[in-house]
Amino acid sequence: MAPARALAFARAELPRYVLELAELVRFPTVSSQPRHAPDLQRCAAWLADHLRRIGLDRARVVPTAGHPLVVGEWLRAPGRPTLLVYGHYDVQPAEPLDEWRSPPFEPVVRGDDIYGRGTSDDKGQLLIHLKAIEALLRTNGRLPVNVHVLLEGEEETAGESVERFMRASPPAADVAVVSDTRMRGPGRPAITYAMRGLLALEVELHGPREELHSGQFGGAVYNPMQAVCELVAGLHDASHRIAVPGFYARVRPLSLRERAEMLRAGPSDAEILAAAEAERGWAERGLTLYEETTTRPSLSVTGIAGGYAGPGVKSIVPPSAAAKLSFRLVPDQTPREVEALLRRHVAHVTPPGLRSSVRTVSRARSTILDRNHPALRAAAAAYKTGFGVAPVFLRSGGTIPIVAAFRETLGIPTVLMGFALPDDAMHAPNEKFHLPNLARGVATSISFMSELANAPLASPARPLEAAYG
Amino acid sequence: MAPARALAFARAELPRYVLELAELVRFPTVSSQPRHAPDLQRCAAWLADHLRRIGLDRARVVPTAGHPLVVGEWLRAPGRPTLLVYGHYDVQPAEPLDEWRSPPFEPVVRGDDIYGRGTSDDKGQLLIHLKAIEALLRTNGRLPVNVHVLLEGEEETAGESVERFMRASPPAADVAVVSDTRMRGPGRPAITYAMRGLLALEVELHGPREELHSGQFGGAVYNPMQAVCELVAGLHDASHRIAVPGFYARVRPLSLRERAEMLRAGPSDAEILAAAEAERGWAERGLTLYEETTTRPSLSVTGIAGGYAGPGVKSIVPPSAAAKLSFRLVPDQTPREVEALLRRHVAHVTPPGLRSSVRTVSRARSTILDRNHPALRAAAAAYKTGFGVAPVFLRSGGTIPIVAAFRETLGIPTVLMGFALPDDAMHAPNEKFHLPNLARGVATSISFMSELANAPLASPARPLEAAYG
Repeated sequence: MAPARALAFARAELPRYVLELAELVRFPTVSSQPRHAPDLQRCAAWLADHLRRIGLDRARVVPTAGHPLVVGEWLRAPGRPTLLVYGHYDVQPAEPLDEWRSPPFEPVVRGDDIYGRGTSDDKGQLLIHLKAIEALLRTNGRLPVNVHVLLEGEEETAGESVERFMRASPPAADVAVVSDTRMRGPGRPAITYAMRGLLALEVELHGPREELHSGQFGGAVYNPMQAVCELVAGLHDASHRIAVPGFYARVRPLSLRERAEMLRAGPSDAEILAAAEAERGWAERGLTLYEETTTRPSLSVTGIAGGYAGPGVKSIVPPSAAAKLSFRLVPDQTPREVEALLRRHVAHVTPPGLRSSVRTVSRARSTILDRNHPALRAAAAAYKTGFGVAPVFLRSGGTIPIVAAFRETLGIPTVLMGFALPDDAMHAPNEKFHLPNLARGVATSISFMSELANAPLASPARPLEAAYG
Repeated sequence: MAPARALAFARAELPRYVLELAELVRFPTVSSQPRHAPDLQRCAAWLADHLRRIGLDRARVVPTAGHPLVVGEWLRAPGRPTLLVYGHYDVQPAEPLDEWRSPPFEPVVRGDDIYGRGTSDDKGQLLIHLKAIEALLRTNGRLPVNVHVLLEGEEETAGESVERFMRASPPAADVAVVSDTRMRGPGRPAITYAMRGLLALEVELHGPREELHSGQFGGAVYNPMQAVCELVAGLHDASHRIAVPGFYARVRPLSLRERAEMLRAGPSDAEILAAAEAERGWAERGLTLYEETTTRPSLSVTGIAGGYAGPGVKSIVPPSAAAKLSFRLVPDQTPREVEALLRRHVAHVTPPGLRSSVRTVSRARSTILDRNHPALRAAAAAYKTGFGVAPVFLRSGGTIPIVAAFRETLGIPTVLMGFALPDDAMHAPNEKFHLPNLARGVATSISFMSELANAPLASPARPLEAAYG
């Protein structure tokens, strides 16, 4: 059977994979630091060459207004599903440098781990799928499915090049795979089947035309900064629910079955509080923190602008003040509906004498996959081959915008197949990647493509996504 | 009679006064801009020389850690009261420069006004008293009272040099005069007899140890930024009163007589709203805005620090957040008592799981003079000579720290004898000084010193200040 030969090949080639990952990590591809732009160019050229060498067609660097994309394809399996493999080769800044035990861009292996910026986020994880493709092509001369590879260099800076490219030349695919999330723990693989949506906006209250002296006018006019605090305070009720009328109308209730599964599979309150380094939770009555952060919408006020925030106190009444609000949304809420509810609410509670305005900064819809979706079944089966155990299905409280973009631009679901460990220090000093996960990841990816070959993905009777919010 | 000759001298010398004021304004004495430090030095030297030339003894520049002081004295009237004349020769920055009709440090006369930064705040006003001294010494060879002159260069930056000097070498005086306030309008002189005190502090709430991702943890922990908003929102009740228990216990009630006088003398709600460019007032029920801003304490939240206040929205839960609070206090509240009440209140309302801290930035006591105080009677009589009308007595909502310093360090009251007009644009572009007020001001100052000569100032039977908070 084809996968067996590929799996054996991959096992034998692991030492070379580690060297290739080290080569990839040596490019300091910090997308947010302009001085590294040439490093991103060189890394993209390296990757395009690599795609060519593992046997992909039309492998190339795609220039953009920002950092380049790298694409390749293998579309010689007519009648079979098409998989879109996504990854990003840019990395977070390595600062603070003095907290690294070894230089961030000089990867070293210590024990079972390879250390360096980008080892797990996302160079190690994207390499997994390239090595699976290579193993399959080397041992069989063909892939079980059609494949598009799409690698970007602006993920850490929320750049728009990848979306522009997809709108201009949308790759036809049935499903995407993204490996940029975490496992539940060592030896405990996880498939993320739900992510919250996002609505970020700024609510501003405007009062006096100019900054007023608080001595002369303190007490005479309604202070917009105070009004903003009152508005924010009024956005939650005493039971920690969001107090915007209509806000929960479309929140899909959680089934007892899913709750039971989540209790079994997900992190405990103690684990979440430890990760937050917080002493005390703040969930709605009767909900675990895992349920609260992944199945319930949230609203975080992330900053208050206007007024004086520097050292000391300046004796003024500011002419205006704004609250920066970040909503996380769940199925079946949509960012536009929530935005409309919030705008109505803000207009309603704006005190007489002040004017209000609401500016939307970003929107992304929530996403949820039926865990019986053929692509998730294929992934689950593949994990059994790769890791020897079935993965747990997890919900995430976060938002990966590329997932929404795949759905909205290409109309396809995304399998979130993460191989990083919770302690891999993504975004932090001493980032690492656990080498056993590289080996198991390649095996999982090989099996995934093989499983996917016969999955009833394109069946019109079965929607690609069971539902989404 | 002595004043008559001095008054005639001053009338005749007015053109020279205007030239001298122009000379003084030409020094760009912006105390907050380090590049102007030499200009402050040169201006101080000019002033010390000027004090010598008008006939003061021991006129000199006093170096400090910051900008220099200028002092002089005339103590040759044994048995007579001693007047401390205070002024400041530093000015606000002139920016934005392109809004000036003529360069800020090249004074020009247009109509009855002289334009330039510092013309009214405070060079024109301090010159008034120097010219009064000069007129009296030139025409009589002596002053009706003893005089200390104290000019500082750090008023606009709240520097501490003047207080340090006073503690180290306190000038013995019975009363101070400060001309750094405004008249009620053209031809309508005013004596400010009450100022509010100040308590500025920062209340900080601390939660998670690090910035948290709002996707991962939004809804899981109490957001300190939200808690700060709730705390601020809870600091006022629905009737716009400050909701700190015990806060009003020591607020002195306003007598019906004083209310009636204030209604007659003070600005209307419409005038105050127009000055604030606001549409709507926010006073407690039954109070005019003038009463609210001058006889009632106020609390302005002037800024919220922590979180992210830059462009756009950052998806974080901040580890801590702080509200900057500026209280204005009235007799008989003291900053320390209110601080204790606030600390107790904050500790009480801090939500479980968060820690709070309160940091005091500055304190100044409120001040109020009996309008029958001999120094105020003397000033009122002097205004009748200078302006031909009796002054109105006004309360101010602001705080002039030097007034508290004179009281606390020297034990003396201060007569606030302002000669600026409400439209003189102190602190703004196109600052001006109304030349008729220069002439009338010198006459008023001459008369004030003459009236003061026989005022029962030092009588132990009459406390210098009727009461203060």
